[in-house]
Amino acid sequence: MANGGSSSDPAAAPIGVFDSGLGGLTVVRQLSRAMPGEAIVYLGDTARVPYGIRSLATVRQYALEDAAFLLRFAPKLIVVACNTASAAAVEALEAFCRPVDVVDVIRPSAAAALAASKGPIGVIGTEATVASGAYERAIHAIDPRRRVVAKACPLLVPIVEEGRDEADPIVLSVLSDYLRELQRLRPGAMILGCTHYPLLARAIGKLMGPDVALVESGESVAAEVQRRLRAAGLENLGKSGGTLRCFTTDNPQRFAQLSERFGGRKIDVVDLVGTDELRSAIEPADRGFP
Amino acid sequence: MANGGSSSDPAAAPIGVFDSGLGGLTVVRQLSRAMPGEAIVYLGDTARVPYGIRSLATVRQYALEDAAFLLRFAPKLIVVACNTASAAAVEALEAFCRPVDVVDVIRPSAAAALAASKGPIGVIGTEATVASGAYERAIHAIDPRRRVVAKACPLLVPIVEEGRDEADPIVLSVLSDYLRELQRLRPGAMILGCTHYPLLARAIGKLMGPDVALVESGESVAAEVQRRLRAAGLENLGKSGGTLRCFTTDNPQRFAQLSERFGGRKIDVVDLVGTDELRSAIEPADRGFP
Repeated sequence: MANGGSSSDPAAAPIGVFDSGLGGLTVVRQLSRAMPGEAIVYLGDTARVPYGIRSLATVRQYALEDAAFLLRFAPKLIVVACNTASAAAVEALEAFCRPVDVVDVIRPSAAAALAASKGPIGVIGTEATVASGAYERAIHAIDPRRRVVAKACPLLVPIVEEGRDEADPIVLSVLSDYLRELQRLRPGAMILGCTHYPLLARAIGKLMGPDVALVESGESVAAEVQRRLRAAGLENLGKSGGTLRCFTTDNPQRFAQLSERFGGRKIDVVDLVGTDELRSAIEPADRGFP
Repeated sequence: MANGGSSSDPAAAPIGVFDSGLGGLTVVRQLSRAMPGEAIVYLGDTARVPYGIRSLATVRQYALEDAAFLLRFAPKLIVVACNTASAAAVEALEAFCRPVDVVDVIRPSAAAALAASKGPIGVIGTEATVASGAYERAIHAIDPRRRVVAKACPLLVPIVEEGRDEADPIVLSVLSDYLRELQRLRPGAMILGCTHYPLLARAIGKLMGPDVALVESGESVAAEVQRRLRAAGLENLGKSGGTLRCFTTDNPQRFAQLSERFGGRKIDVVDLVGTDELRSAIEPADRGFP
């Protein structure tokens, strides 16, 4: 428990956040905006990104290893910032991390979309997220009659990572192609079901029109995290002084370079943690006893 | 040595081929076409694909693990069908596999491009392959004065994996965008420096014009493999009867589904080998003693 906050103040413990790569920094950005006093420990599993093309069993295994690593920091809550990991592993993660609370990106966005509109709901995401049907399940768990149409958009992540601008004609033609069906649906709300998509929000908003409420994971997750911490008396009420410590499983230089695009600020110090170390973190003897 | 061919006939031993994923099946297709009697063992490391965004040290480690696994089959030769692994690790692989011969995808394509034309040479590839400068080095090792221009095309792999047709307007606009600079170069030959690109060869050929010789890794690698086996007296001269055994580190179903697109034939039986097993294959005690 050595790396956590002061043992006398449970609210000083960090929030752990993991993602398959850098996209989760868009969630970190919203967490820091909503709760500027919180300490955040972030793990980006860049050695095994993207999770979106792996089998569910493999994604579940990786997600548990990521969570086991974060548990070493004695966090007060863990955020699964990766849509694919949320879709594949949220129940397994909740069981594994207990008594530490787990917030995924899917259920808060589903609830936010339902709250934003009474109309049909559109969802865009990676191949694996859409194939999992996780957003439909989360929406129908609250409102079984709501119409949901989900569309996989596999080129958007590489487009964002290539650094193409929202005004790039290729970005616009790819988006037009993917969104055609959703435009016809005339949804009341549309969930950007991948952490990379907020970087294309302006272009998506233009194509969908002003009547469609766009739901970004980051904002709805931050609101849910704040609600849970408040309920548990664990919120750090500081108006500033928050910290961010980043770990990555490969290529810390690339992580640092790309961090500003996703997180809105340059992160200079990124620590490397090998996937061998992640794997060893999940040995039963290690669980919760760093 | 149990899994190799008949111990009495070294020419009956298999050819080992590895790639980060499925793209290497385009190389297998050319090997089988040129040498229809050969037994081929293929490993696609789909649990850790794509190699093209990893650090060189990580790619080198993965490549050695892949080769160690193939060495269990007592192959007569190993083909590195992955451009990124060829760029990052060919010397390490040669040292590791000795006395088994190693053929990479870069040097044969460089030689084929030089043989095809006296003009400038264009190269397209992934981010990591282009950043490595491996094609320039291979070309300049033969002809130091030849002009080479390489262009990274990160969207082409996801476009091919999404299954978009060559006539898709998005494919054409992405290609036009990437190839603009190379069109101005008016190259004599252009290397398709990624195993996925042969699936876009017609569209690329149309954009570059009939005077540009397109060099596909598969063909030049198959010719090089045949030359080396012949020189060593290890060629299997059978006109048919070749076999293909496939292993993948994740999601054998997805491998089987996509195999036809890359390899030109449906592969029904794909065996799963875990990355844990690959890692253990590289233990010194295991080397060459399966």
